[in-house]
Formats: sequence, structure tokens, C-alpha cells
Amino acid sequence: MMKFSPRLEQLIQSFQLMPGVGPKSAQRLAFHILERHRDEGIRLASALEQAITHIGLCNNCRNFAEEEICLLCSDTKRGIAKQICIVESPADLLAIESGGHYFGRYFILHGLLSPLDGIEPEDIGLPELEQRLAEEGYQELILATSPTIEGDVTANFIIEIAKRYQVHVSRIAHGVPVGGELEYVDGMTLALSFEGRRTISDSKKS
Amino acid sequence: MMKFSPRLEQLIQSFQLMPGVGPKSAQRLAFHILERHRDEGIRLASALEQAITHIGLCNNCRNFAEEEICLLCSDTKRGIAKQICIVESPADLLAIESGGHYFGRYFILHGLLSPLDGIEPEDIGLPELEQRLAEEGYQELILATSPTIEGDVTANFIIEIAKRYQVHVSRIAHGVPVGGELEYVDGMTLALSFEGRRTISDSKKS
Repeated sequence: MMKFSPRLEQLIQSFQLMPGVGPKSAQRLAFHILERHRDEGIRLASALEQAITHIGLCNNCRNFAEEEICLLCSDTKRGIAKQICIVESPADLLAIESGGHYFGRYFILHGLLSPLDGIEPEDIGLPELEQRLAEEGYQELILATSPTIEGDVTANFIIEIAKRYQVHVSRIAHGVPVGGELEYVDGMTLALSFEGRRTISDSKKS
Repeated sequence: MMKFSPRLEQLIQSFQLMPGVGPKSAQRLAFHILERHRDEGIRLASALEQAITHIGLCNNCRNFAEEEICLLCSDTKRGIAKQICIVESPADLLAIESGGHYFGRYFILHGLLSPLDGIEPEDIGLPELEQRLAEEGYQELILATSPTIEGDVTANFIIEIAKRYQVHVSRIAHGVPVGGELEYVDGMTLALSFEGRRTISDSKKS
């Protein structure tokens, strides 16, 4: 088996650090760039450097931001609703934003509480969240963490914090997705969809 | 729909320049790196820069190399067989090397002749190939270009060059792969497998 030159080997190895990139794809990417796409490779290298050096977390909501305060937090219209939605990751925020139905603020945990893995409240920004609750007078805090063990532990911890402030706490509904076929939905989701069922007509009242 | 900050947008765009990376995967890669894998991102950026800056083509065989002459061309054992195999790309060379049955030299075209696309003999290193044939006294030149129109045009051009030197020219066999099911093999490959059929027993001679 042939060996690659050291820098080619290094490039293939580095591509393999990316999620979903195996040895074959890594080699294909490296060859693709060296063969005829060196400009694109240089652009990617500089975009990586720029992003990693200049993108931090918004002081307010902990979303990715190049300034102290992110675009969303600087948007005064978003403050009118007096709502704050707690999500696990920037990708979750993006999913909610692409829905286009929520117009309040966010707070991003970048993880979930997991004492066994050493992830404590300060690692997911809970002191900052408490500070925001104390200072900004929200009317509603919406939990959008996933319904897993860690998600529930985190949600309960946040509920305890929220009790110290006059804020209504809610949690997004989990259940069968629209258009989803019941037979393919997992048991956990089905259980939550039954637990969260709503009364359509109440015979006792009629 | 939410906008990304400029550098995050730039990073997502740059990932999309890579083959097989769509908008969703590009976003996932960018978030993955910024979320908890910044060190890996920096490693990839520097590996890209190092590779693109320092990897050129071997003066001899045109394979990727960091020195004037690649590892394979510096290996004197590879010269004993006096064979030179012509391949289209470094990936093709790698495929042959991983087979472990060929011990001669290589010459990499980095493309195929295509006058309509403006790809001329000098773009695929044919003057350099002629120089090697003139200077190195090969006994056999093995064509491993693909059996497409461009591959055939290129092969014929190389055959013409080879006629000026005392070198036996051969072409690798194309046909049904070992373990391949006949019904799934394309017509072109089947046609080549019939054309390249070998006599097992010859009734006229018996």
C-alpha cells in the first residue's frame, strides 16, 4: 500500500475529523482540492480561520455572534413579546426561526446538564440565564429542550430558577409530527402525544 | 428566515464548494466546528494551507509531491521492471497501488485530451511523457485510461508518440468485474468483455 506525502496525509486526516467524513471521502476531498480546486481550498481555510477567530457567543443569548450582542438580540422588535425560548443549540434556534412563528428572544444552552459527564449549570450558561430573568422582566419562558433524560433534568433545573421570578413557564408540545405516519413514530413520541392530548368536546359540560 | 453573521455565512458557503456537501451539511459542519470542535477546525485550515502551498507535481511522473521527485519515483526498485503505466489521476494510481500487483513506474495525466474543452497535449503533460520515453528506455507502456471517447482519443495520441520509441504498448483489460453480476453490468463494459475474450481451447489446433 502506497504512503501519501506528509502534508497530503495530514490533510486527509484533518478532513476525517469532520462528522460524516470517512477515509474514502476525506481522500476524495483532498484530491479534489489539489487536483483543480486549490482556490476553493484556500477560501475554505481562510473562512475557517476567520470564523473561528471572530465568532464568539452573544453576551445576551449565547448564540454565535461576531459582535458583543447578536443581530437577533439587537432587534428591538423581538423584545415586545416579552418571551424567552430556551434551546439546546444554534441549530435548534435556526429550526424555530425557519418556522417563522416565534417572535421573542432566545437563550442557547450549548448542551444539557449531565453531572456524570461533568456538565454543570455554569457550563450551559444558567447563571447568565438567571441574570436575564432578573433584569429583563420576561412574561413567558418557553422550554424547547428535547424530551430526553438530560433534557428533562435541564428543564427541571430551569423551572426551579424561574420560580424565583414572576415568569410563566411553558414547554413546547412533543407528539406525532404533521404528515407523520403513526406506524413509523417511536414509542416515546407516541407516549408524549397521548400525555399531551387535548379535549375536543367534553361530555360532562354538555 | 434568519440571517447568519457574515463570517458564519462565508464558512457555510465555503463548505458548499466541496463535492457532495449541500447547504444542510455545510451548516452542520460549520455548527459542529464552532460548537465544540474549534481545534479541529484550525487543524483543517492549516492542513489545507500547508497542502496547497507545498504540494506540487513530481517532475518525473506528475503525481502529487512535496519534493521535486516523489517517493515512488525515488524508489530505485520500481525502475527494474522498465514499465510505465499511464493513469488519469492520482486516485487511479492509488487504486492500482492498493492492488499491489504492479511494480513499475507511473505517469499521471491529470485529465484527458478534449479539444472542444481546450484540453491540449501540453495540458496533460504529453511533452514530458515523450521526454521520459526518450530518456529512460522503457520496455512496456501500459495504458490505464478509461474506455470513454476522451480516454480513447488520449490513448491513441499516446500510442502515436510511443511509436517513435522502442516500447511495447499495452492496455489494461476492461470487462466484467470479478464477483460482478452480469445482469447489472452496463452494455459498454459487456461489449468490451466480449471484444477482449480469450480462447480457452482451440478446436482447429486439436
